[in-house]
Amino acid sequence: MGNEKERVAVIGAGSWGTALALVLADNGHPIQLWTRNERQKDEINDRHTNEKYLPGITLPDKIIAINSLEEALNGIETVVLAVPTKAIRETLREIIKFQLQPLTIVHVSKGIEPDSLLRISEMIDEEMPKRILKDIVVLSGPSHAEEVSLRHPTTVAVSSKNMEAAEKIQDLFMNQHFRVYTNPDLIGVEIGGALKNIIALAAGISDGLGFGDNAKAALITRGLAEISRLGTKMGANPLTFSGLAGIGDLIVTCTSVHSRNWRAGNMLGKGQKLEDVLMSMGMVVEGVRTTKAAYQLAQKYNCKMPITEILYQILFNDVNAKIAGERLMARLKTNEMEDLVDILSEQMEQL
Amino acid sequence: MGNEKERVAVIGAGSWGTALALVLADNGHPIQLWTRNERQKDEINDRHTNEKYLPGITLPDKIIAINSLEEALNGIETVVLAVPTKAIRETLREIIKFQLQPLTIVHVSKGIEPDSLLRISEMIDEEMPKRILKDIVVLSGPSHAEEVSLRHPTTVAVSSKNMEAAEKIQDLFMNQHFRVYTNPDLIGVEIGGALKNIIALAAGISDGLGFGDNAKAALITRGLAEISRLGTKMGANPLTFSGLAGIGDLIVTCTSVHSRNWRAGNMLGKGQKLEDVLMSMGMVVEGVRTTKAAYQLAQKYNCKMPITEILYQILFNDVNAKIAGERLMARLKTNEMEDLVDILSEQMEQL
Repeated sequence: MGNEKERVAVIGAGSWGTALALVLADNGHPIQLWTRNERQKDEINDRHTNEKYLPGITLPDKIIAINSLEEALNGIETVVLAVPTKAIRETLREIIKFQLQPLTIVHVSKGIEPDSLLRISEMIDEEMPKRILKDIVVLSGPSHAEEVSLRHPTTVAVSSKNMEAAEKIQDLFMNQHFRVYTNPDLIGVEIGGALKNIIALAAGISDGLGFGDNAKAALITRGLAEISRLGTKMGANPLTFSGLAGIGDLIVTCTSVHSRNWRAGNMLGKGQKLEDVLMSMGMVVEGVRTTKAAYQLAQKYNCKMPITEILYQILFNDVNAKIAGERLMARLKTNEMEDLVDILSEQMEQL
Repeated sequence: MGNEKERVAVIGAGSWGTALALVLADNGHPIQLWTRNERQKDEINDRHTNEKYLPGITLPDKIIAINSLEEALNGIETVVLAVPTKAIRETLREIIKFQLQPLTIVHVSKGIEPDSLLRISEMIDEEMPKRILKDIVVLSGPSHAEEVSLRHPTTVAVSSKNMEAAEKIQDLFMNQHFRVYTNPDLIGVEIGGALKNIIALAAGISDGLGFGDNAKAALITRGLAEISRLGTKMGANPLTFSGLAGIGDLIVTCTSVHSRNWRAGNMLGKGQKLEDVLMSMGMVVEGVRTTKAAYQLAQKYNCKMPITEILYQILFNDVNAKIAGERLMARLKTNEMEDLVDILSEQMEQL
């Protein structure tokens, strides 16, 4: 009994929740994987598959799917929260109703709440009573669920206000294929993960318009600069944006057909309407809501974010993507360093 | 006559030289494009194509191919030097024999010379007598020749010791599709362009081994960190590595099948021998020589470059790529920030 590994609950059986459950199960942890969907529960328990989200993957026996949140959290100290940003508050409100023991919450979603402009750890902090909240840890990085479930090499960053909690989560997930790095910059790790989805949408639009790899590389480069500029104003360490949760995640999201945000942007670039794109995706496209939040943040922090602004106009004000793209090219400065020096001076203030 | 645009010579009719000739011709400049190959000259002049290097593209009439270097440089003040790093010295030695008027040399190659460890502008400076050398300008950035020749949006950086010369080159090339940015950091622009080919080889190996996009994104992230670390020690402005000539070029080279270095790495990852890969490519793979140079630079500057070191072992000491890749994963630190803080402290010294 002494060698038994900690049981962990994973809330949300989408592709990412299921892939993380698989990593923990590989490490010997019995997993209580919550899903609202009864048929999905039966599929996971009876056939050990989750075909809609991780086609072709056989899940370890250690993963048990459960429909009741209360049952899924029974006896649990560590919970991986893998629901879309939009569903986080309602999920936590469900949990509060029955939860008696303090939880460490590992959130693995990537978003910022429009209007409140809160990061996910701040939303969790607002919702969870102190009596049942031990620590909040974020896990983020360049990590397509499909590849994680195939045990392809993957690296992610974890962060928390309490780095001991982050280190515990590092130990929980770390294995030969899934490498976990700690980073004390909670703000930067959360911002990097959230804002890269905006640039992925823009990169998809660029590809949809047929602009090519040169244009996309320029867009990612300028995108990283504006994420870094905003993040630094919000209190992040600028170095985080040069790491896994910054440029790493940005690259993987902008250059891989696995990425939902890229796919949605690609359809927009090909001339489809936003509502049709969202309908046809059938999964949450976090970048759309995040664009709204980032647009509001840029105004709040008086921060120049040309890509975000133009994307906002395309998504919410029906501006034509092709015209907007050309406007963007024209708007960039002719001296690359002027722009970069703006960022540097903000970084220097920060240090 | 007063409105006539400056005639420009382009030395080297490979894909990049030809694409840049096309940009200048689009801007109204008569181009004298030098190639050693007689059949290629005839093809360009008679059929206005260069099928081996830019298949499917019709070249503007303003491009005249010439076999004689002396004739190609006749009456010229600005020359675009678009030959492989390995051929630069011999080409300049040819030019010296007849050249009487001072030249501004725009070099567009990406490499570092092994053993001498010189950047390309330093090689040019060593070879060219002062009497016929006006300025040296580098042009570099995320720019596949194929896309440039299709007039897809492309951004590049230009730099020089004399920024007035860089601005003149900016004006020469700038148009609606081809956006040129100035950057005063000559060292950084040259280093970024050269070293990204190393990471592209490594990214190709990772893909050849079947490691996936998560692994590649991690590799690019760590690769940028080590390029930045070495470049800063060599006197570059660390910000350049966050710009077009750094991360921009790195992304396009590591994620596009257009990239020769990536393709060579990919074949290595699939188990082919280096000599067979180089034979089958039929074009120069700059990254192989650059890996040797960077390995020597890392020793000279006492700089940690784990990806470069492992790639050197694979290329020159027959170390198995799969074993090396796994060794690399294990070698990375568990605290992402420790590494990044190393870089920051070097950046701070620099400022």
